[in-house]
Formats: sequence, C-alpha cells, structure tokens
Amino acid sequence: MNIDNNLILPEPTLRRLPWYLAYVEILKSAGTEYVSSTQISRALSVDASQIAKDLSFLNIKGKTRIGYEVETLIEALSDFLGFTRSHKAYVFGAGSLGKALIRDSGLSNYGLEIVAGFDVNPDTIARKDLGVPIYHIDQIYDVMETNPASIAILTVPAQSAQECADTAISAGVKAIWNFSPYRVKVAEGVVMANTSIYAHLALIFNRLEANKHRN
Amino acid sequence: MNIDNNLILPEPTLRRLPWYLAYVEILKSAGTEYVSSTQISRALSVDASQIAKDLSFLNIKGKTRIGYEVETLIEALSDFLGFTRSHKAYVFGAGSLGKALIRDSGLSNYGLEIVAGFDVNPDTIARKDLGVPIYHIDQIYDVMETNPASIAILTVPAQSAQECADTAISAGVKAIWNFSPYRVKVAEGVVMANTSIYAHLALIFNRLEANKHRN
Repeated sequence: MNIDNNLILPEPTLRRLPWYLAYVEILKSAGTEYVSSTQISRALSVDASQIAKDLSFLNIKGKTRIGYEVETLIEALSDFLGFTRSHKAYVFGAGSLGKALIRDSGLSNYGLEIVAGFDVNPDTIARKDLGVPIYHIDQIYDVMETNPASIAILTVPAQSAQECADTAISAGVKAIWNFSPYRVKVAEGVVMANTSIYAHLALIFNRLEANKHRN
Repeated sequence: MNIDNNLILPEPTLRRLPWYLAYVEILKSAGTEYVSSTQISRALSVDASQIAKDLSFLNIKGKTRIGYEVETLIEALSDFLGFTRSHKAYVFGAGSLGKALIRDSGLSNYGLEIVAGFDVNPDTIARKDLGVPIYHIDQIYDVMETNPASIAILTVPAQSAQECADTAISAGVKAIWNFSPYRVKVAEGVVMANTSIYAHLALIFNRLEANKHRN
C-alpha cells in the first residue's frame, strides 16, 4: 500500500481510528459488505465529515452511494495503525497487571508481541509458565542483544517507574508505555504513552459523587 | 474534612492529582516530612502555580517556606480522590484482562472493590479460584439485589461492549469503565470513562515509525 509511514498523525485521529476498526469488524462478522461514513457516524456519534477526514489519511476511496468495502477498510485501518506488523515489547514488573498483559493474547492481535518480562522478585523470575522468560532487571543489556525489543511496558510500582524507564532507554528501548501512577519523564525522541488507570478511577469516583448530590 | 463533594473537578486536574499523590507517597517512603509546590513542580514538570491551583481544591494549606506536610497531603489527596472509600464494581468479561483486574489487589488500595464478575463461558462461571463469584450475565438483576455495585468494568470483546453496558445500566449500574475498543454510548447521567489501550498502541506505533524515518 502506498502510505507515507513518516506521517505523524494527530492524537485525536489516532484515538478515533481504532473505534472505526472495532465497528467495521463487528459489521464484517455480521456479514455486511459495505459501510458509509454516515453509517459509522450514526453508530459512533462522530461527525461524518470528521470520519471522511480521518479516513483520508488512509489512501482509501469509498464508492459513491455505496461507501467503503468493509473488508478493504479493515485491512487498510489495521495496516495503517500498525496492528498487522509485529512490535516487540518487554514488560517491566510481572505483578498482576504485568502478567495479564504478558498472557493477554488480545494484544498480539494488535501487533504487540511481548517477548520478555523483567522483575526483581526471584520467585517471579523463576516462573516458566508465563509463555515468555522473566529476567532480573540487571540482565536487560544481555537480553537486548539476544532478544531485542523497542517498547517497554511499565507495570511497576510508582517508586520504581522512573528508574525502570531510564534503564530500559539506556538499554536501547525507543518507547515507554506507562501504566504506573508516576509521571515518568523521558528525553526528547523517546516515545511516551500514559495509560492513566488511577486518573480514570479518580474521574469515575468524582463524577459518581457529583451525580449523587445532583439527583 | 470540610470538602464539597458536590464539586465536578476539571479532567486535567483529576489527571494531575494522582501524579502528586504518587510522588508524595514516594517522598514519604523516603522519610521526607515536608514538600513544597516548587519541589513537586520540578519532579513532575508541572507549573508550580498550576500545582497550587490544583491543590487549592483540597482545603489544605502549606506553611510558608516549608510547604505541605507530606503525611497530611497524602491523606487529603487520597480522601479527595475517593481512594479511601470503597466503590463496588462488577467486571464484565472474565478473560485475561478481566481476571487480572479481579485479582489485582492494587486497585483495592485505590478504592475500587470488585465484588463479582460476569461472563458467558460456563467454564469461567464455574471457577472458584478468582476471589469473587463469576455469574452468567443473565443473573445480573438477582446479583444486583444481593451483592450490588455501582460501576461496570467492560473487558468484553468489541461486539459485546454496547449490549453489556446497556444491561449493566438497566440493572442499576451508574458508571461504565470501558476497556474494550468499541465506543460505547450511554445516556446522560451515566458516568463514562474510556481506557483506550488500542488507541495508545496506535499512538506508540505511529510515533515509533515516524521517529525511525526522522533519524
């Protein structure tokens, strides 16, 4: 496909494209062959012109009055979002969430291949049942040579998050995906994504409390 | 504490407050007794005046030249964010991520108490080793009477997400925390939070690719 991979997409577009993909995948499993941006718009409450604009990044054309071919749209979206290519990752902190991410085959369907875990707990490091090897964090430089990865997923406690990120980056990792509540800082040029579970909890609790007083 | 719980906090403030909490908890474990907003500012790269403004929601006063008492600040932040009160939740979809959230004692330290899971797989429903009972989704109305909860955590596949949310809301749930890639819609008055794992993956892949071409 003739796509400019050098393109830095705006974050809101990157947030919406996976919604479209999830929706058209549902249509496909229901046997639907074509979908219009109006139809996506109604299902997801996103402006139809916004959808057309987002999809224009993909070099894919819909047919007048029929819309996009579902199969082609799924392929184009998956490919464009990088979900069809393998991106290797390490998980730092093989606690409950870390182990779940290692085991969660769902992520590998989206192009994330977890190739190793790192921990400091000897019992965790000794485990052979997680599908990938778990190493002591001190071994990262060796592991990077034999079993390299470009993404570090942080599921460590807050107090270890910055140190883990620094170690991972100095070993050659190019992106940090932070699930810890600590605000990790990285040098320019290192990719940083925060999945702020605790902020979302705080948001839910705050809005629930506010609604309680309103009703 | 004399806090107006009826206050709807801005989302950016709700995103930053957990950062401050994580940071001052680290200070506490290091034996530090006082912290200034300048110090928090330097550690987290957040403007000091922004920090003072965020903390002004808490009815907590720092001392001139000394700053905030670490212990008091932790208590005030945890209490204000709702992390010290129990909020009951159901997990819908006891797959890998669902099971991890059920088992993850970390969340209970932040005020989220998962009291039951729902699934459609008979093998999963029969499991007794997850710490909470797993029910068939059809039983939700009965479970809501004997073991009620106000939050539904969705870790189901995209095609089941909307239906699960609708069922949970009709059974009396007041908030939806969506981990599925589908964009779930809810009526006004229902709290909605999306943890967009797939959007974050797309962001990481896009930025990695762009950096590769830049270097």
